[in-house]
Amino acid sequence: MIRRLAVIGVGLIGGSLARALRSADAVGEVIGCGRSAENLELACELGVIDDCTHDPAEAVRAADMVFLAIPLGAMRPTLAAIAEALPSDCVVTDGGSVKGSVVADAAAVFGSAPPWLVPGHPIAGTERSGVAASFPELYHNRRVILTPLPETDPRATARVRAMWEAAGAEVTEMDAAHHDMVLAATSHLPHMLAFGLVDTLARMQGNDEMFRYAAGGFRDFTRIASSNPVMWRDICMANADALSEMLDRFGEEMTDLAQTIRRGDGEHLLEIFGRAKEARDRYVDGIDGDPLEPG
Amino acid sequence: MIRRLAVIGVGLIGGSLARALRSADAVGEVIGCGRSAENLELACELGVIDDCTHDPAEAVRAADMVFLAIPLGAMRPTLAAIAEALPSDCVVTDGGSVKGSVVADAAAVFGSAPPWLVPGHPIAGTERSGVAASFPELYHNRRVILTPLPETDPRATARVRAMWEAAGAEVTEMDAAHHDMVLAATSHLPHMLAFGLVDTLARMQGNDEMFRYAAGGFRDFTRIASSNPVMWRDICMANADALSEMLDRFGEEMTDLAQTIRRGDGEHLLEIFGRAKEARDRYVDGIDGDPLEPG
Repeated sequence: MIRRLAVIGVGLIGGSLARALRSADAVGEVIGCGRSAENLELACELGVIDDCTHDPAEAVRAADMVFLAIPLGAMRPTLAAIAEALPSDCVVTDGGSVKGSVVADAAAVFGSAPPWLVPGHPIAGTERSGVAASFPELYHNRRVILTPLPETDPRATARVRAMWEAAGAEVTEMDAAHHDMVLAATSHLPHMLAFGLVDTLARMQGNDEMFRYAAGGFRDFTRIASSNPVMWRDICMANADALSEMLDRFGEEMTDLAQTIRRGDGEHLLEIFGRAKEARDRYVDGIDGDPLEPG
Repeated sequence: MIRRLAVIGVGLIGGSLARALRSADAVGEVIGCGRSAENLELACELGVIDDCTHDPAEAVRAADMVFLAIPLGAMRPTLAAIAEALPSDCVVTDGGSVKGSVVADAAAVFGSAPPWLVPGHPIAGTERSGVAASFPELYHNRRVILTPLPETDPRATARVRAMWEAAGAEVTEMDAAHHDMVLAATSHLPHMLAFGLVDTLARMQGNDEMFRYAAGGFRDFTRIASSNPVMWRDICMANADALSEMLDRFGEEMTDLAQTIRRGDGEHLLEIFGRAKEARDRYVDGIDGDPLEPG
């Protein structure tokens, strides 16, 4: 049971955690913090939070759990802003899509990773954003990855795990660098391909006509190119090493494919497409049960 | 009104055209031709066709319209097989995803493009295949592109146009090379990216774990990697020039993106992502009305 939860950033991700914990009767009081007065008022009206402030230090002052549901680029200044105000029994976790950068931000602010910080990543989201889009079931049966460090207090990790489990999620732990590699492959790279494809077409002459003939497969394939550019800039900057390694691997695959097409090697094309189809179909049950999008 | 339609290849595409024309009372008799006796029997049972044969020449003998709904790799031998049997008033069209190769196949068989051949491409399909998946509404409000040549008899083009309009489709005409470039950009390239992404992951160590953490965005993004490998081998071989040009363009975009990420140029990332999001959102109404996938 969380006595007082401070949600820094009351949008889809932060708002849905608050709603989930309320539904589960797993939280006493929720205080929301954000920059938009309008969004905070709406969060109060919707009953997602009990009280609100624009000041992160104020928000965390009496909290026993803090959830940072903010862009990666805001992690470092926000950690610095709350540093002095954090109560001694308070645990802090976050929802950032990259974990190595959050660890580095904490080290930059605190000298080393503090024992009460449990970096985390709920693999959930929708295309919508803001507290109006939040709902208590967002995390039901979704994976949450925690990446505690050797310095992390195991009791802090246990409290964050219990919180996510109360919200209905399935919690896994892994190394931050491993998390960042897995997410680079399964989420960050696909977003780069979708952004890159749409941008390639947008920059071609006659792109109006191009898009007019694009049918359903294109729509599905490029849906993630509608994601928030600022969020994705932050993810790219924060996960530059793992992501550029994945882009290199993918680039080699594409070079191989282009050469194979140019030399008309049907056997090799069949091998590539067959291997991909087999892998996609093999995992499709696990994937297709899942209607939402990674954050 | 078509007196006798010969459908060579009674699957989703061929079966749905037959069903659509029957629904619209726009066809007298339908004869189906294919290699699978089981599929042809099912097509008869379902009332999609009236009669069937395994012999393309037999199928077209008394037809006034022939629809070739077969893989691109089968076009040339099939055109050769029906050449002698075609009645003089018969018009032939096809449903292939590449048009330049069909024109080349016809020229190889007949010496030059025959006046009664109207190359066509219905931009429609689903992930399912076979006659059991066919339905009369598949072409409703879908685009069909016809690519008649200077040698094509305008009356033949008009008859094919009338057929597709009776099936509920919206018919456009364009040059075959232009069609192949537009489809390379909007359909063939995205399929290459989806196949390539899944294959890149499938070839990585620990790929089981990779796929386990893949969420909804990945599912949407890679759905088209479940497409038929043989069909896509044929498309790659048939549209090698336009597709490899698009792969090169896309490769340049990815190289630029990787370099931008490596040097941490947030401004340029925002520019790329913003341009892509703007283009995607601008066309999303036109695209999202459309629940199906290009063939």
